[in-house]
Amino acid sequence: MKKIRVGVAGYGVIGQRLADGVKCQKDMELVGVADVAPTLAVQALFEKGMPYDLYLAADFKKDEFIARGIPVSGTLEDLVKKCDVILDSTPGGVGLKNKEIYQKYGVKAIFQGGEKNEIADVFFHGYANYEKGLGADFLKLTSCNTTGLIRAVDCLDREFGIDRVAITIIRRVADPGDYHRGLTNALQIDKAPSHQALDLMTIMPHIEATGILVHTPVTHGHIITVVATGKKKITKEQALSAFSKHPRIRMVKISDGFLGNASLFRYARDLGNPRGDMYEIAIWEDSVVETGDSIMFAINIPQEAVVIPETMDGIRAVMQTEKTSKEATDKTNGYLNIPSWKK
Amino acid sequence: MKKIRVGVAGYGVIGQRLADGVKCQKDMELVGVADVAPTLAVQALFEKGMPYDLYLAADFKKDEFIARGIPVSGTLEDLVKKCDVILDSTPGGVGLKNKEIYQKYGVKAIFQGGEKNEIADVFFHGYANYEKGLGADFLKLTSCNTTGLIRAVDCLDREFGIDRVAITIIRRVADPGDYHRGLTNALQIDKAPSHQALDLMTIMPHIEATGILVHTPVTHGHIITVVATGKKKITKEQALSAFSKHPRIRMVKISDGFLGNASLFRYARDLGNPRGDMYEIAIWEDSVVETGDSIMFAINIPQEAVVIPETMDGIRAVMQTEKTSKEATDKTNGYLNIPSWKK
Amino acid sequence: MKKIRVGVAGYGVIGQRLADGVKCQKDMELVGVADVAPTLAVQALFEKGMPYDLYLAADFKKDEFIARGIPVSGTLEDLVKKCDVILDSTPGGVGLKNKEIYQKYGVKAIFQGGEKNEIADVFFHGYANYEKGLGADFLKLTSCNTTGLIRAVDCLDREFGIDRVAITIIRRVADPGDYHRGLTNALQIDKAPSHQALDLMTIMPHIEATGILVHTPVTHGHIITVVATGKKKITKEQALSAFSKHPRIRMVKISDGFLGNASLFRYARDLGNPRGDMYEIAIWEDSVVETGDSIMFAINIPQEAVVIPETMDGIRAVMQTEKTSKEATDKTNGYLNIPSWKK
Amino acid sequence: MKKIRVGVAGYGVIGQRLADGVKCQKDMELVGVADVAPTLAVQALFEKGMPYDLYLAADFKKDEFIARGIPVSGTLEDLVKKCDVILDSTPGGVGLKNKEIYQKYGVKAIFQGGEKNEIADVFFHGYANYEKGLGADFLKLTSCNTTGLIRAVDCLDREFGIDRVAITIIRRVADPGDYHRGLTNALQIDKAPSHQALDLMTIMPHIEATGILVHTPVTHGHIITVVATGKKKITKEQALSAFSKHPRIRMVKISDGFLGNASLFRYARDLGNPRGDMYEIAIWEDSVVETGDSIMFAINIPQEAVVIPETMDGIRAVMQTEKTSKEATDKTNGYLNIPSWKK
Repeated sequence: MKKIRVGVAGYGVIGQRLADGVKCQKDMELVGVADVAPTLAVQALFEKGMPYDLYLAADFKKDEFIARGIPVSGTLEDLVKKCDVILDSTPGGVGLKNKEIYQKYGVKAIFQGGEKNEIADVFFHGYANYEKGLGADFLKLTSCNTTGLIRAVDCLDREFGIDRVAITIIRRVADPGDYHRGLTNALQIDKAPSHQALDLMTIMPHIEATGILVHTPVTHGHIITVVATGKKKITKEQALSAFSKHPRIRMVKISDGFLGNASLFRYARDLGNPRGDMYEIAIWEDSVVETGDSIMFAINIPQEAVVIPETMDGIRAVMQTEKTSKEATDKTNGYLNIPSWKK
Repeated sequence: MKKIRVGVAGYGVIGQRLADGVKCQKDMELVGVADVAPTLAVQALFEKGMPYDLYLAADFKKDEFIARGIPVSGTLEDLVKKCDVILDSTPGGVGLKNKEIYQKYGVKAIFQGGEKNEIADVFFHGYANYEKGLGADFLKLTSCNTTGLIRAVDCLDREFGIDRVAITIIRRVADPGDYHRGLTNALQIDKAPSHQALDLMTIMPHIEATGILVHTPVTHGHIITVVATGKKKITKEQALSAFSKHPRIRMVKISDGFLGNASLFRYARDLGNPRGDMYEIAIWEDSVVETGDSIMFAINIPQEAVVIPETMDGIRAVMQTEKTSKEATDKTNGYLNIPSWKK
Repeated sequence: MKKIRVGVAGYGVIGQRLADGVKCQKDMELVGVADVAPTLAVQALFEKGMPYDLYLAADFKKDEFIARGIPVSGTLEDLVKKCDVILDSTPGGVGLKNKEIYQKYGVKAIFQGGEKNEIADVFFHGYANYEKGLGADFLKLTSCNTTGLIRAVDCLDREFGIDRVAITIIRRVADPGDYHRGLTNALQIDKAPSHQALDLMTIMPHIEATGILVHTPVTHGHIITVVATGKKKITKEQALSAFSKHPRIRMVKISDGFLGNASLFRYARDLGNPRGDMYEIAIWEDSVVETGDSIMFAINIPQEAVVIPETMDGIRAVMQTEKTSKEATDKTNGYLNIPSWKK
Repeated sequence: MKKIRVGVAGYGVIGQRLADGVKCQKDMELVGVADVAPTLAVQALFEKGMPYDLYLAADFKKDEFIARGIPVSGTLEDLVKKCDVILDSTPGGVGLKNKEIYQKYGVKAIFQGGEKNEIADVFFHGYANYEKGLGADFLKLTSCNTTGLIRAVDCLDREFGIDRVAITIIRRVADPGDYHRGLTNALQIDKAPSHQALDLMTIMPHIEATGILVHTPVTHGHIITVVATGKKKITKEQALSAFSKHPRIRMVKISDGFLGNASLFRYARDLGNPRGDMYEIAIWEDSVVETGDSIMFAINIPQEAVVIPETMDGIRAVMQTEKTSKEATDKTNGYLNIPSWKK
């Protein structure tokens, strides 16, 4: 069977992980990655011996690559021509310009959460609306927080029916290695409702969602608390049982030593996961409590890697190699070797 | 009229502010403060010229005071004998030992949130259950988070009737100047439900409360999000109107520049408030959103000073100088010159 | 005697403190302050009842002031006309434009460290080169780190003669209340030599200085380590003795509880200093060590307030009311009530 | 040739990395690791399928292992009996008790920096005093900061002769995943001279060293500035040339994007290094400056992994398989695949 040919535009925090994720999919071929400058990510690629071919998104910095001896395989346009699908993880706004190239060559593309919804035909989540993405030309993935949040809400919704969610997002403010957007000794609040609540409603229009987002000065994982109101009362046991069966949810306990977001990062490093990444969201068993007819719980979102599986699902949707969310997510989970999937 | 004679045991973060708070009450007299060692707080008292008399809670460090030339007016027992009420803000557990001294001399005492509830006859909040404290010998104040939370919930409860609250506490992990209990680049989660939710139910037993607490590495103010479910639907406008009238709630806007907890601390410093303290909780107007029949909003809790007004109310309750919450809190607010009170 | 009429342009972190500092000088009159928008600082000024007259640096936001009921006394130009000296603490670059107004009306001005050196006739420090500022039209103050560093180096230089300093600046990355320039879980290094070392050499050209600056995610006070090489060996005792006599240096001990920069901020708050500010740099006695012929020690720089005294000195220099550094700094220290000065 | 049989006691941050490091040495065999409780590190080992045998250092928690289904291969004593050398990375103080077991079975041991010097015959560094460790029964490794610092100082000392160093240690306060020893918005200073300076003098007694240590609230890498005074003047070019040739020093540039300690951690993750670890210290080219006869520069110490190579060297020393530092460190570097070694 012919493999799906995939390219990655934008080799940053997300782009690197998308490239690695595609490499794991036995039914896909990573054609190459593109970036604009010899960033640290590109320097690391070079030091590793160029496991991926590198294309140049913009010509003007070519000299910098040459000066460092970094081989360049062509332009972004060259890359696009060789691909069936481009994963566009360039900084917000750049994707819109790149889209013209994708359209020119009739190549499909999947954009990340930083772009505006208008860029794509479908705003996509691998579990919650897979079928909408079938055969589409342009998808936009939900952002990291929304991706993880929807996994948990969709999980409850399938089993019990959810009417309403009120979320509090305790947002990590920067990725490890960021220097340009930190916060020092301050919690910063956004105007409510948070865009994640609005995004959830776009994907799952039958649910009423609202929420408040607070930025916090940490780098390893957002924590979201969710108050979810079901069509009928959901008990703690029911919620735990549903969550436990979800392949992309890892149940953890404070009493086991998972004291917070930093434990999950450390654990992923100790597991030997590349970059210390984790694809699963975590839900703390000890956080689940009932309140009236609602259920409340806390999720950990590993912001650097959480969108990778749903993006792989997206490739399957636009290429129509799998017709249902179940088939697509099973395949993605298997190739990504998500541990809970093996259970 | 004879002034209420008040002493403060434990001259730390809270004790210093209690002493300053009593100084502002024209119907009270600050007899003195007691501590065990020449801490920085005591050194500052000394550098200021000893505006308060200092008593020694334990004898064994007397030499250290003498060596520094800090005058000591006697023992804790000497202080107790001269007082009608002791405000005990010693570290958790010490209050229980001190209680024996208070009982020996028939002196009333008000303990802070660090002590166990059993230490006191009444677990007290100046607005929510003032009447229960009338004439009691021993009160225990709610902790900083619970004190501020109850202000907001009681405010809505009086006006609309509240059935249920689900809270997310984004807790500052240390006070400015703490070195022994910080957190670095980590969010830490506590087993749910949080004690603040349980405490709220103790004070307001007609409300069902639950919640999740997450520790964050900042020092200036907790942020709590509240999902409050009324007996009937509460609109955003109704909630804003109720909050705006509360003397110990300050309404703020992100669009005015109140971007987070650090803005409130900076603003209080710029107001010229002693120590940059603020007695009011703040609620962000831009955070208030409706969700089904519930209302959701975010509160800022200035952890160092928020309990001072309710403690002053407590003195009035145990001494029965004011018979109602309205009379007591009005008097406290006036003497503390709480700005919103003047409106 | 006629008082020196002083205005402040830019009512931010430094501007507010300059205004307060001028208010303390019995030989000066604060004519007013100017700013461009109803910032939190201006809102606090309004809530305090407008102790200072407010002028509008730019007309375009006047409506915002009117909408809030904040009285405006005129334009920056109106303010300038009424003053002998303007303290310009506007953001970097703005001072250069304002200078045209100052020149137009023949009014002297003192710029803060954010401006380029070229803006002024003299790059100024109240102790190290006071005489150079006598009668000048335009001074530029050293930045907070350089101001504090020079106090300590000048102190040793006067007594022992200093040939060389190598400094390590552990820089706090943001002021309390900043949200736009934090750093999260990262130390960031600048290209060496640091500008503070170069600035020191501009003010004290007989000393060879170099240094490395590392940004750290904290808000309360830079810490600088200094390796100072004297013309002859300086012993620990000699250094301690010299530092102890300096009015703007506060000697502190770890063993007293001054564990770091946060202790000094907390102590200043507990002293009741407005905004928790401290004018003195602190030097830890326990940090002073000898190395070969050099002496090494650590300084704490309270970044928000440290330049206020030297700016007051600058006013005296340009107005020539005091002819020597000794007379000027004594007067400033006295009016600012710097505690160590009273010793 | 018979492989050296190595066991690891204490499977924490360092212990895990020692085990991984031994696994890389083709002339060594990892017999197993021992710990006292099913920590997250042990849970990760189990989730990975037990690549190492696990022994139980203390019996009392055996039930907890059984309950989780984690296989236990015996007691610490069982492990010791099978080994030639034990790497003891238990918490400070535990090593002293364990030493009795090692002595009982005549097994050599290498302790980490947390133990007191008295525990070992030799205080050891693979480059600076390898020969002292030859055939010893008990070594103690220098701590992470001292290990990295000595690499750089020894490098200069061999080439130019060093008389004196004055260091400023900007210490990360916690490891990623620590919750018990953080610091929030505070720099904390230790009494000078720092123990690292004293330790350097123990290993390199011909050098006079002193220094100041400041704790900072970050988790990824200490930064040390060094003022090193040579027997004769060392130029910037000379220093850069010497550093560049050292296998365990990685030269980096701010202008390449290595803005601070977090860049190095991110880069190591992007390289695909297990756990995002780096064995090399980094020195910023842009930090190197001359001052008089001295040279000043800044080092990054990756605290979790830096001691692994020198510990491998230590095994070679006590087993006398390599007679010189050159032979031992070359072998270690090769097996650890340290990139700069390949140059």
